[in-house]
Amino acid sequence: MIRETHITLAHGSGGRATRDLIQHLFLEHFSNPQLAALEDYATIGWPPGSNSRLVFSTDSYVVKPIIFPGGDIGRLAVHGTVNDVAMSGARPLCISAGFILEEGLAIDVLRRIVQSMAAAARSANVTIVTGDTKVVERGSGDKIFINTSGIGIIESAVALSMTKIVPGDKVILSGTIGDHGTAILIARGELAIESDIESDTACLSGLVKAIIDMTVSSNAVDAIRLMRDPTRGGLATVLNEIASGANCHIKIDEERIPLRPDVAGACELLGLDPLYVANEGKLVVVVAPELAEQVVHAMRQHPLGRESAVIGEIQHEPHGFVAMRTAFGGSRIVDMLSGDQLPRIC
Amino acid sequence: MIRETHITLAHGSGGRATRDLIQHLFLEHFSNPQLAALEDYATIGWPPGSNSRLVFSTDSYVVKPIIFPGGDIGRLAVHGTVNDVAMSGARPLCISAGFILEEGLAIDVLRRIVQSMAAAARSANVTIVTGDTKVVERGSGDKIFINTSGIGIIESAVALSMTKIVPGDKVILSGTIGDHGTAILIARGELAIESDIESDTACLSGLVKAIIDMTVSSNAVDAIRLMRDPTRGGLATVLNEIASGANCHIKIDEERIPLRPDVAGACELLGLDPLYVANEGKLVVVVAPELAEQVVHAMRQHPLGRESAVIGEIQHEPHGFVAMRTAFGGSRIVDMLSGDQLPRIC
Repeated sequence: MIRETHITLAHGSGGRATRDLIQHLFLEHFSNPQLAALEDYATIGWPPGSNSRLVFSTDSYVVKPIIFPGGDIGRLAVHGTVNDVAMSGARPLCISAGFILEEGLAIDVLRRIVQSMAAAARSANVTIVTGDTKVVERGSGDKIFINTSGIGIIESAVALSMTKIVPGDKVILSGTIGDHGTAILIARGELAIESDIESDTACLSGLVKAIIDMTVSSNAVDAIRLMRDPTRGGLATVLNEIASGANCHIKIDEERIPLRPDVAGACELLGLDPLYVANEGKLVVVVAPELAEQVVHAMRQHPLGRESAVIGEIQHEPHGFVAMRTAFGGSRIVDMLSGDQLPRIC
Repeated sequence: MIRETHITLAHGSGGRATRDLIQHLFLEHFSNPQLAALEDYATIGWPPGSNSRLVFSTDSYVVKPIIFPGGDIGRLAVHGTVNDVAMSGARPLCISAGFILEEGLAIDVLRRIVQSMAAAARSANVTIVTGDTKVVERGSGDKIFINTSGIGIIESAVALSMTKIVPGDKVILSGTIGDHGTAILIARGELAIESDIESDTACLSGLVKAIIDMTVSSNAVDAIRLMRDPTRGGLATVLNEIASGANCHIKIDEERIPLRPDVAGACELLGLDPLYVANEGKLVVVVAPELAEQVVHAMRQHPLGRESAVIGEIQHEPHGFVAMRTAFGGSRIVDMLSGDQLPRIC
C-alpha cells in the first residue's frame, strides 16, 4: 500500500517507500514477468525465439552536486547503467544518453560532463549510440539530469536469479562501503568537513567478467546465484531485497565488511550508518559455498576487487530478515530503510 | 560552432541551435557511425555476422502541461519512443521507463500517468520491461519528467537511409500538421483561446508495418528511402534535415499539406507557422516515384493515414534547401528554425 498522497523524497531513497511505490503502482499497472523479477535489468531472448539473451536496463541520474571528488554526473551515468547491465552476467555493448538541461547551464560545464561520459564509455568498452536533448526553463530543473539506458548480451550459460539462492550460500562483497554517498554529502559543503574521500564510481563489467570466466572454466556457472551493486540504499538495502526476494535469512559479520576509517569517521559525524550509504563501484555476489573461496580469489586478482571477502551467509530462518553480528559480539537486525537518508545521491 | 556560452531554450527547440549542440558537442565527443547518421535511433547488427538487426532509441519527455487534450506525458512518452523505433522500419518490442519526480507530485496524478502509459504500451504491443524512479526536491524539477528507451527488431530487408534519397523521389505526409503543438500551447492557458484541438499523439508502428508489408509483397523494399516523424520543430525541420543530410533540394506544395482549419486559425492567432509546429502521430516517407501511388494507397487504408498525400518531390538543386510553392502560387524558402518557437512541447 502507498500511505502517502504526494511524492516525498523518501520515494526516491531506494528504501521502503521506493519499494512500495514500485510494487503498488508501477508493477500493478505495468505487470509483466521481467519487471516482477525486481532486478535492475530485463532479460530478453534475442533474436526472439533463440537461446541467445539480451539484457536491457535504464537509470536516470540527478546527483547533486554534478561534479564531485572522484567523478561527475556523466561518469556516474555511464558506470551506473553499465553496471546494472553487468549484474546480469552480460557484457555491456551500447548505451543511450538522454539529457534534460536547465536553461542557463554553462556550455563549458556541459562539455566537461560530455567528455567525462565519452572517456567512461571508452574505458567501459561501450558505445553511446543514440541520444536526446531537452531544455527546461530556469527553475524547472537543476542544471542537468541524464538518463542512460544500456544493452548487453549474455554470452555464457550464466542465469542469475533470486530463486537460485539456497541456505548455505555465501555472500561476497568486493570492497569498502559508503565511499560514494559520503563523498557526495561532503561535496555539498553544507557541513564544514574536509576530507580526501572520493566516490568509488567505477565500471564493474571487468570484475563481473573475471567471476563469470572463472566459473565457466571451473564448469560451475550455476554456483553464481545472483550479483547486485549496492548503490542507492547501500549494502543494507540490497541484502534486504535479497532476503525478501529469496525468502531467506542473511547473517552478516560487521568485522568482515571493509570500511575506510575516514568514511567511518565522516559517517559518525554526519549521523549516517555506512550500511545504508550508496556505493557506485562495489559488487555483492551470492555464491554456492563450495565455490566461494575461488570466487573471492578471482575477484582479488582484479583491481576493483582487491578487498573482496565473504561477509555473510544465507540461512533458512527467520526468513525475510538480515541480521548482523556486531564488532562487539552482539547481534542486530539490519532493516529496510524507512525514511530518506540521502536524497539525490545518484 | 556553438555561439552561446550558456544553454538557452533554443537548444531544446529542435532547430538550428539544437543541431549545433549535437554536432559540435555530442558528436564531437561521442563520435561513432550510429550517432553520426543523425537518425532518431541506432541500428545494431546482432548477433554479429547475422542478418538480424536491433534498433535502439531514447527520448526524455518534459511536456508542459503534463495532461492535455488528447493525451498526457505518459502516453506521449510511450508513443514517442515507439515511433522513433518504428521509423527505422523495425517492429518495436519493449521499452524502459525512467521517472524523475518532483517532491509534492500527487500520487493520484502519477497513477493516472502510469495507467495511461500501460494502456498506450498495450495498444502499441510493447512491454515496459525495466524502469527507474528518482525524486528531486520541490523546485528542482517540474512535477514529472519521463525517459523512455526502446528496442525493436527489423524483420524485413528494409534498410532506410538518407543516402538512398535521389532526385525524383516523392515526399509523402500521412495527415494534418500542427495538431500536437497547437493543443499544448492552448492547454497552457496563457492565451484565452478555447478550441477542440487535440494532440495527435498516436502509435505509428501499425502504419509503418502497412507500408513495409506492401513494399515487401511488391518486392520493392528499396523503394522506401527514409521515414521520419515530424515531432519537435515540425514538418519544416524534418524536411530541412533531409535536404541537408541527403544533400538535395526539396520542393513542397503548400496546397497539398493537410491542415485543420481550427489549427490554422489558432496558429494565426498565436503567431505560429504550422510548418514548424510539433506533430506526435504523423509520418513523412520519402519513396521512389514509381511506388509513390501504391504507398499512398496503402497508407490511406490505415486509420492514421486516411489523409496521406504526396506533398513534394526531391530535386537536385539548389541542394540543402527546402522551398514551398505557396497557395498563392509564389515560392518561399522554408528555412531551419533559428530561435525557440515552442519550449517543452514534448
